[in-house]
Amino acid sequence: MEQLRKLIEERIEQWCDALPQSDLYAPMAYLMRLPGKRIRPAAVLMGADLFGADPRSVLDEALGIELFHNFTLMHDDIMDAAPLRRGKATVHVKWNTNTAILSGDAMLVKAYQLMGRDARVAQLFSRYALEVCEGQELDMAFEQRATVSLAEYTEMIRLKTAVLLSCALQVGAQCANAPAEDMERLGSVGEHLGLAFQLRDDLLDAFGDPQLVGKQQGGDLRAGKKTWLLIRGLELEATQGSTLLRDQLARPAESRDVPLMIGTLEALGVRTEAEAEVARHDALALAALDHLAVPEERKAPLRQLAAQLMVRVY
Amino acid sequence: MEQLRKLIEERIEQWCDALPQSDLYAPMAYLMRLPGKRIRPAAVLMGADLFGADPRSVLDEALGIELFHNFTLMHDDIMDAAPLRRGKATVHVKWNTNTAILSGDAMLVKAYQLMGRDARVAQLFSRYALEVCEGQELDMAFEQRATVSLAEYTEMIRLKTAVLLSCALQVGAQCANAPAEDMERLGSVGEHLGLAFQLRDDLLDAFGDPQLVGKQQGGDLRAGKKTWLLIRGLELEATQGSTLLRDQLARPAESRDVPLMIGTLEALGVRTEAEAEVARHDALALAALDHLAVPEERKAPLRQLAAQLMVRVY
Repeated sequence: MEQLRKLIEERIEQWCDALPQSDLYAPMAYLMRLPGKRIRPAAVLMGADLFGADPRSVLDEALGIELFHNFTLMHDDIMDAAPLRRGKATVHVKWNTNTAILSGDAMLVKAYQLMGRDARVAQLFSRYALEVCEGQELDMAFEQRATVSLAEYTEMIRLKTAVLLSCALQVGAQCANAPAEDMERLGSVGEHLGLAFQLRDDLLDAFGDPQLVGKQQGGDLRAGKKTWLLIRGLELEATQGSTLLRDQLARPAESRDVPLMIGTLEALGVRTEAEAEVARHDALALAALDHLAVPEERKAPLRQLAAQLMVRVY
Repeated sequence: MEQLRKLIEERIEQWCDALPQSDLYAPMAYLMRLPGKRIRPAAVLMGADLFGADPRSVLDEALGIELFHNFTLMHDDIMDAAPLRRGKATVHVKWNTNTAILSGDAMLVKAYQLMGRDARVAQLFSRYALEVCEGQELDMAFEQRATVSLAEYTEMIRLKTAVLLSCALQVGAQCANAPAEDMERLGSVGEHLGLAFQLRDDLLDAFGDPQLVGKQQGGDLRAGKKTWLLIRGLELEATQGSTLLRDQLARPAESRDVPLMIGTLEALGVRTEAEAEVARHDALALAALDHLAVPEERKAPLRQLAAQLMVRVY
């Protein structure tokens, strides 16, 4: 994993260095150089490695996936009016909104330039890219809605977050000419890992150690964000006839009692349920990985990545 | 030409009809259904026809080019804060800015899905798509600058406007496996036609019949927009020691004497020079078309398109 990450960082740095000096390209380098876990490009390399291709041979596609991911961050940050990204000013704040729109557009084109060597890879990529847009649309639509079901929320995070990991693994595998059945299994590995990862993120917001998580505890609850925890908590309250969470949400954000909300979720058993859901997706991911028809030793890096994503920091 | 346009309109209508019902896709259909001349998709069909392919065989690529063009309109309208597009509310006004950003992004992905059958076509498309972004960046940068040279302005409109026509012709030709030399000649045809078209547009703003042009006469001058005419007018004034245009520009937009500015441009000979420049590009386009190594009768539709673009409405 560390080896793969080094290859990726070198490729990213080389790519950023070669960009022309202008406001169109500078925001791309700025965002790409923010320190990150590089999970998605690593997944591309692992997908290729699994089926016997040299990971080095798919560095372009790995970079393409990372560019796409950063393009979505650049535009999502505009849509969310987010001032900070990993502790640094977002592109639309550091430059301006128009530059962030245009540079993001050009970044998507740049991603396609790297994904376009193989028409099958490009088609695969387009399918998932569209799903990511659909996920972002649902996310924005849910903000305007009074209620969102657990199934709807899960579908939203599947599209917005999980499918890109699935796409990354499959792009690598496709470049290595993996058989169709294994492509599907690998897609399932990525999707379940991605879902588990996002649900774990929801859990960390409420129950994580703020020191380790690196953000304010209960920030999602304070903002009234409809996460898995809050949706499930409101469902359970409704069946039990209690209204504590609902009452808190009716207040303005700054006067919500966040510790009380966290305690209520715990008492309702939402934390336990969410942890079980995370474990279920982890297990499904590992089961799909087991069924992959490649020698066990080739699966080691992907198992390591899965283990890394499954680490709890609370 | 009319036949081709009918094919294109049918393909666009069919595509719009098949879109899912949601705020992600509705703005795409809205923009694509605004009446337009469909010059770019027609150019794709003509490019294929020139080299003996059935125009029907490249309808996907023609639609892809038109989608890309409309994606740029959707995002440019946000950047320009434009309320109207062809007399109708722009997407960011009819929906909202976030929807216009996201729907535009998804539209670019949709364009790639249609351009991606052939990796060579996708690479060609990416190269020009990036140039269009670079042109938009220059356009925005020029607004912030005190002076822009004629050469810089020409490069900006080449990138922002002309290269897409060039791209459209070449995409069609590439699908028909045109030889590399002819691809270059065809690129030149498109680029010069595009430049002539944009310069003619600048001329129409000041000297066109407002009834026929369909917008307020001298709108660019009123806004102080650095078009070919204004840049050249200021250059000539500077060499002659007069300052009429410069003085007008120093005033707030609403108190500028637009008819006086138009008269000054005419008196300085800018109109004549611009008309000569348009004629020069038209001639270069036709010369490149002459050199194309295909039977003369196959060039007829493209000559017709060129003639149509060359019509003066003033």
